[in-house]
Amino acid sequence: MTFESLWHDIEPVGRSGSSGGYFRQPWASAELELRAWFREQATARDLAVEEDPFGNLVAWWGASAAGDAVLTGSHLDSVLDGGAYDGPLGVVSALAAIDLMRDRGVQPARPLGVGVFVEEEGSRFGRACLGSRLAVGSARWDDVAGLTDRDGVRLGDLVAGGEPTPWLRQVGRFVELHVEQGRGLVDLDAAVGVASGIWPHGRWRFDLTGRADHAGTTRMEDRADPMLTYAMTALAANKQARLAGQRATFGRIEAHPNGTNAVPSRVTAWLDARADTDEALTDLVAAIEKQAAERADRDGTTLSVTAESVTGDVAFDSSLSTSVGRGLPVLPTQAGHDAGVLQAAGIPSAMLFVRNPSGVSHSPEESAETRDCLAGVDALADALTGLVA
Amino acid sequence: MTFESLWHDIEPVGRSGSSGGYFRQPWASAELELRAWFREQATARDLAVEEDPFGNLVAWWGASAAGDAVLTGSHLDSVLDGGAYDGPLGVVSALAAIDLMRDRGVQPARPLGVGVFVEEEGSRFGRACLGSRLAVGSARWDDVAGLTDRDGVRLGDLVAGGEPTPWLRQVGRFVELHVEQGRGLVDLDAAVGVASGIWPHGRWRFDLTGRADHAGTTRMEDRADPMLTYAMTALAANKQARLAGQRATFGRIEAHPNGTNAVPSRVTAWLDARADTDEALTDLVAAIEKQAAERADRDGTTLSVTAESVTGDVAFDSSLSTSVGRGLPVLPTQAGHDAGVLQAAGIPSAMLFVRNPSGVSHSPEESAETRDCLAGVDALADALTGLVA
Repeated sequence: MTFESLWHDIEPVGRSGSSGGYFRQPWASAELELRAWFREQATARDLAVEEDPFGNLVAWWGASAAGDAVLTGSHLDSVLDGGAYDGPLGVVSALAAIDLMRDRGVQPARPLGVGVFVEEEGSRFGRACLGSRLAVGSARWDDVAGLTDRDGVRLGDLVAGGEPTPWLRQVGRFVELHVEQGRGLVDLDAAVGVASGIWPHGRWRFDLTGRADHAGTTRMEDRADPMLTYAMTALAANKQARLAGQRATFGRIEAHPNGTNAVPSRVTAWLDARADTDEALTDLVAAIEKQAAERADRDGTTLSVTAESVTGDVAFDSSLSTSVGRGLPVLPTQAGHDAGVLQAAGIPSAMLFVRNPSGVSHSPEESAETRDCLAGVDALADALTGLVA
Repeated sequence: MTFESLWHDIEPVGRSGSSGGYFRQPWASAELELRAWFREQATARDLAVEEDPFGNLVAWWGASAAGDAVLTGSHLDSVLDGGAYDGPLGVVSALAAIDLMRDRGVQPARPLGVGVFVEEEGSRFGRACLGSRLAVGSARWDDVAGLTDRDGVRLGDLVAGGEPTPWLRQVGRFVELHVEQGRGLVDLDAAVGVASGIWPHGRWRFDLTGRADHAGTTRMEDRADPMLTYAMTALAANKQARLAGQRATFGRIEAHPNGTNAVPSRVTAWLDARADTDEALTDLVAAIEKQAAERADRDGTTLSVTAESVTGDVAFDSSLSTSVGRGLPVLPTQAGHDAGVLQAAGIPSAMLFVRNPSGVSHSPEESAETRDCLAGVDALADALTGLVA
């Protein structure tokens, strides 16, 4: 009941009329509307809302105490043209779980917070889990304040920034519920599961520089065309990931000057790579970079590779996961999450996944059945009830 | 003297502080400044300026007469991050040639016009030689009024459009001076040359559609990634052009949603292809399209190819070229020009080229020596003096 009504409220916010996908960039109109909605919902439930200097929100049930608070929640931003569930499902389920716990007469012995981490997808400033990384201190404000989005807007002009406030220090355990982003639960025929850990993953920027030329008058053999180096690199990434049973993707590219009748002077493209071990990830990226460098030599272009963010292997807290996931199937994920950032920073964390029949994510086709979402709310309420007792 | 002073006036307009290249998009601030400058220079010379409904400008020396006017000039817009000479050299040289003819006491027996054609590069609305095509009627206003630029601005909101005004009907011959865009004159050790013709050339839009997916959680074998189809197509274009001794370039690409952690749902890229005969061009594009279609089959993506503009073989008017190019070496060009559009529309046209030591064009490295530019003004003044007698 609560879940459906909350979901109904936010469903149209930031949805594209043409693709049906969501455009909920941090600090843009749709995401700001969702933040306002979250504050209203928290206030309606007598939860006290705090905002930290980076724009992360937390709504508290019960006064905060030192080190033993329980946190749940997720994020409200989406990738460009993303799905409805990735992020918001965890926030809506957290609010619905609190309603359910109250209906059941639960009296928490310690504070329970619902967190909304900002810029989880990194779709505006290129750093995934930016809000949670700043909050735990694994990203430093001075290093990111100057980041600019596609329109040249500086992060530092959107939020105050500075030193992290200590709100996360109160948190002893974090449970994030999330839509599954693969078909693991479909294969297991289960509505809800618990995560074992997150594959090592990262983003690398490939800057390829050549020489601008007229596309008509310059002989093919006289060119230094970075688009060719890029094309070979994108194919190499796919091939290396297939061979190794890992993942590698070039989904973002910027050509300069990006004119039809000009050989580009520069191509910048971002590699997203993930693997089941830290060593396999290093090997995968090295193999792609090697092929790119060889092709750059042939094309007369230059290659520079910058690691923009790399996250090592994360295993979620095993005793917390056992308690949260009682009776649920266990599965890994290849996607990064704020729970992974908190776990890596020493805050015991666990994740619940809700089945996604399409297996597709970061896409308008991402989906979840309402009955599975309700099973997720139930599992989350049960887990939180145990943790706040 | 005149040439240097005119050149000095416009040199800083639209130049990038970082690359040194020029950003003179039609109807944007730099190009609007150049248009205002052109009107001032024309007025200062007692040339009567007309603007047609598409934004093409012409400045007349002498009253217009039916069918026997002589036109010179070129364009003022540039590609994105282009060179200083491509276009403006022909306009500045035309004004300087008129000053020289007046100094020499030439009294034209028929009107002489200096034309400035708009959107020659097609860098804003994707149609090369748009202004001249509209003026001669080989492009129809109703077909292009709805074109939008990268920011969604409609062409129809920038200019009145409608039916062509008859200003070009007065023109019996057109001579366009242009910087050379290859190294032909360097190899011939000549400052100025005359064009034989323009290679057949065109632009084809490749729309590749796949399925958006999460870059981490989707197995490589479950994807339908149009970036891979694009990458193979870009390499195929290069290879086919090399094999055939022609030209093929992918310099412009748009990925959607263009996010680092998303397999793209769609990639659109533009092929610029040129060949020495109409048949060779058809064969070249067909070979590229065939390889793209084969790869799309393997990737589970779909391919749609749209010819956005195709220009057949153009041979410039031979008697006019002989008269204009007396004693000058003759060379072909692979670049499209307004002179090609006018010639194809039945207006006898010729082109003069000025040596470009770098051989590079559509790039900040495009160059010309002042003494070669002055030789160009001289050759143009001589040619025009003969034509208006």
